[in-house]
Amino acid sequence: MSATSFDPRTGAVVATVADTSADELRTVLATAATAAPRLAATSPAERRPWLHAVADALELHRDELARLADRETALGLARLTGEVDRAAAQLRFYADVAAEGSYVEVTVDEPTATTPGLVRVNRPLGPVAVFGASNFPFAFSVLGNDTAMALAAGCPVVAKAHPAHAGLSMRQAEIAREALAAAGAPRGAFSVVSGHQVGVELVRAPEITAVGFTGSQAGGLALWRIANERESVIPVYAEMGTVNPVVVTRAGAADIDTVAKGFVASFTLGSGQFCTKPGLLLAPAGSGAAAAVAAALHAAGPEPVMLTEAIARGVVAGVEQMRAAGAELVAEVAAGGAAFAAPAAVLTASPDALVPGSRVLEETFGAVVLVVEYADDAELAAVVRRLQPSLAASVFTGGADDPDAAAALALLGDQVGRVAVDEWPTGVAFTWAQQHGGPWPATSVPSATSVGAAGLGRFVRPVAFQSVPDGWLPPEARSDNPWQLPRRVNGTRS
Amino acid sequence: MSATSFDPRTGAVVATVADTSADELRTVLATAATAAPRLAATSPAERRPWLHAVADALELHRDELARLADRETALGLARLTGEVDRAAAQLRFYADVAAEGSYVEVTVDEPTATTPGLVRVNRPLGPVAVFGASNFPFAFSVLGNDTAMALAAGCPVVAKAHPAHAGLSMRQAEIAREALAAAGAPRGAFSVVSGHQVGVELVRAPEITAVGFTGSQAGGLALWRIANERESVIPVYAEMGTVNPVVVTRAGAADIDTVAKGFVASFTLGSGQFCTKPGLLLAPAGSGAAAAVAAALHAAGPEPVMLTEAIARGVVAGVEQMRAAGAELVAEVAAGGAAFAAPAAVLTASPDALVPGSRVLEETFGAVVLVVEYADDAELAAVVRRLQPSLAASVFTGGADDPDAAAALALLGDQVGRVAVDEWPTGVAFTWAQQHGGPWPATSVPSATSVGAAGLGRFVRPVAFQSVPDGWLPPEARSDNPWQLPRRVNGTRS
Repeated sequence: MSATSFDPRTGAVVATVADTSADELRTVLATAATAAPRLAATSPAERRPWLHAVADALELHRDELARLADRETALGLARLTGEVDRAAAQLRFYADVAAEGSYVEVTVDEPTATTPGLVRVNRPLGPVAVFGASNFPFAFSVLGNDTAMALAAGCPVVAKAHPAHAGLSMRQAEIAREALAAAGAPRGAFSVVSGHQVGVELVRAPEITAVGFTGSQAGGLALWRIANERESVIPVYAEMGTVNPVVVTRAGAADIDTVAKGFVASFTLGSGQFCTKPGLLLAPAGSGAAAAVAAALHAAGPEPVMLTEAIARGVVAGVEQMRAAGAELVAEVAAGGAAFAAPAAVLTASPDALVPGSRVLEETFGAVVLVVEYADDAELAAVVRRLQPSLAASVFTGGADDPDAAAALALLGDQVGRVAVDEWPTGVAFTWAQQHGGPWPATSVPSATSVGAAGLGRFVRPVAFQSVPDGWLPPEARSDNPWQLPRRVNGTRS
Repeated sequence: MSATSFDPRTGAVVATVADTSADELRTVLATAATAAPRLAATSPAERRPWLHAVADALELHRDELARLADRETALGLARLTGEVDRAAAQLRFYADVAAEGSYVEVTVDEPTATTPGLVRVNRPLGPVAVFGASNFPFAFSVLGNDTAMALAAGCPVVAKAHPAHAGLSMRQAEIAREALAAAGAPRGAFSVVSGHQVGVELVRAPEITAVGFTGSQAGGLALWRIANERESVIPVYAEMGTVNPVVVTRAGAADIDTVAKGFVASFTLGSGQFCTKPGLLLAPAGSGAAAAVAAALHAAGPEPVMLTEAIARGVVAGVEQMRAAGAELVAEVAAGGAAFAAPAAVLTASPDALVPGSRVLEETFGAVVLVVEYADDAELAAVVRRLQPSLAASVFTGGADDPDAAAALALLGDQVGRVAVDEWPTGVAFTWAQQHGGPWPATSVPSATSVGAAGLGRFVRPVAFQSVPDGWLPPEARSDNPWQLPRRVNGTRS
């Protein structure tokens, strides 16, 4: 068995990667398990140069990697070159977040007359399995956010190559392994495996302590179910994404043409293959939103080329299913001449058609969106409450004195991980305050984030040491604080 | 249908509580859902007096409550009076932790040339279902840790009455509702329901956003499975507990009689009905540990009275099952004359008998323990690695220069949520640094704790606000910081 990647523009084979054998997988897992205590014994400051070295190596191979990625994804050299830089910057950011030390959450209770001395620290979980996404072959793939966070937090990573960019996955892994070895990281700190069934066995492996996943709901839920059937159940952090709703307020609809142009630019970005693609525009009745979006789509004339043949077929099928469920097609740009080309489409539906379970409310991965007009606040609220929770949402307003904006914002805030004002939800900055998550089924763990500093917390576990003499404690728990971590002592932060 | 509690000393009925009807449950859920946004709009400082009022009311009714609890649990007036005070102190502690404000984790990224302004805050999840334990009718029941944390974090609570102390559950709920109403908490902030099937429906209810559970593995896993089958899956924080291992080092075995006496005192406390009961003593070969523990048990002569008839039967069955699986009975104190009396027992087994899946390695709830002698460090490590992860563990050492202590501590630290030196694991202080959790199957979520300040984090969810004008933000995210919460701004804590 093997994984084969194709050029979405021509359909030609780009790379064929043999599946990892059972023996190889055993070796990878054993090496990761051996590396785990070695990584856990290093300080985040010691691990920092490892991640910086991988970042440097990515940048050094920027052009080669972007070209290879473009052959396997057709996302375009400009975007992919930028994404190499983003992946490198992410690796450095999470290394720096770890080195800052807050994620260890060192908490010290000195003994009292009635309570013992306790030191609570977050310790690395152990080997983490990472399943990247097809749509971000650098930023959310084998060296993406999950890998960077797990390594920064002190966990060995076993990444699964993505079949849609199998060649790029292996090349990135090779570059990373060389950079990590040169920087002094233990053998087994990072490995890559390939193969569908190998991925299943990876999640089942007793050595694996957590799973990071970015991709489709079907894929994420499958891994979540497998992990829940283990003898020792482990957390699966699956970022799956749904329809990210955008509300245009009455005042925000004053310049509906500008909103429509921005909407088209956002939902056609990367051929609509973003987990933060705005999939639903809710605009006031009489705003002419559907016609404006239809006009903007025709004016833009996108030519979506999808990552895989299956995704391209899914776009066509998705439009058909939405129509069958009661949506009306108001604009379509036909598929171009590429092998994995797909149409771009705008559909509309009445608020009454948006009932839980309807296909109209489900995501169609690609440049396909739904525009719905709401009569009043009550109808808007009713529609939003019927939506599945999402990663992100936006409100387009008439400015600071818009009387409807705060209510729309509060409504959406209850259902998503991030809500933006007068900006499209597509971009996800990797910063301290970012939240890329959301209630089920946007993600499998609503308290977690897969982008931003807080994401490191997914790969650690608290342990409390009670009345333990200093010399027997791991460094992060010692009273002399050799790693110079921020601490809370007797309830007060230092 | 109804729940009936019995006096464990006599077997007489103490209380009968009718099951909550389907209509009543719907009302309870609707009221909790209505209360949720009202609670979320209050600051932790505003909620603080509510919890303090419940604490005051518990103390005011201390003697009445302890007497009722003693009739339903036979845990003794001294212990139960102390536990009322503990529950009151917990309520105040979590209210104070919430008021300190760190749990909101306010994180602000000011806008830059390339990234938008973001404010990330933890917001209350919504109505939380709480399932308490039989063995702590105050500290881990309807007004226990989970309820206190959820309310402190701004979530309405729907608690399920425990059938083994059904009368006490309802009386505590009555006291709490009155105190909350007098303190100005919204209606629906706290409710109690009763009935086995009602508990199932509670976990299935769309209004419920998270579940806190303390109790048996069977009970916790059942609720976890039900939650995983919901259309919208929600987190179940189940603290289930397993065998908490204690390692005696070679030097620690020098005074084995003292260790044995302490062990007996710890595992017979509360008739062995603690989730932190030390269930396995690992002592060096030739230490005479089994004989010493046997002698100490006979000297102590406990007369365990169990919380329920089923638990009492489980003790007898557990001893039989352990013997059938290869353990040898070395000491037994026969059951006394109480209705729900059970024996206390010490068994031994060879390290070879401790294989994964063996009944010998499973918890027997009650005053039943296993003593195992290890030949050397390698055998100790092999045995510990075969154990299921636990909530807690202890190492008994020969003092600060014990050459084996650090290794034993590290070994246990990989498997448990808390490890103590020269102290028994039974007591669980509620403090900032406490960790009451552990890897599967000790708990369902290894990163969570059900005791200690960090437990509030189970009942909140991060939301990021992007480029949102100050006036439209919830108070906790506003730049003028009306709730005076600690913040991290541009990566730096203030």
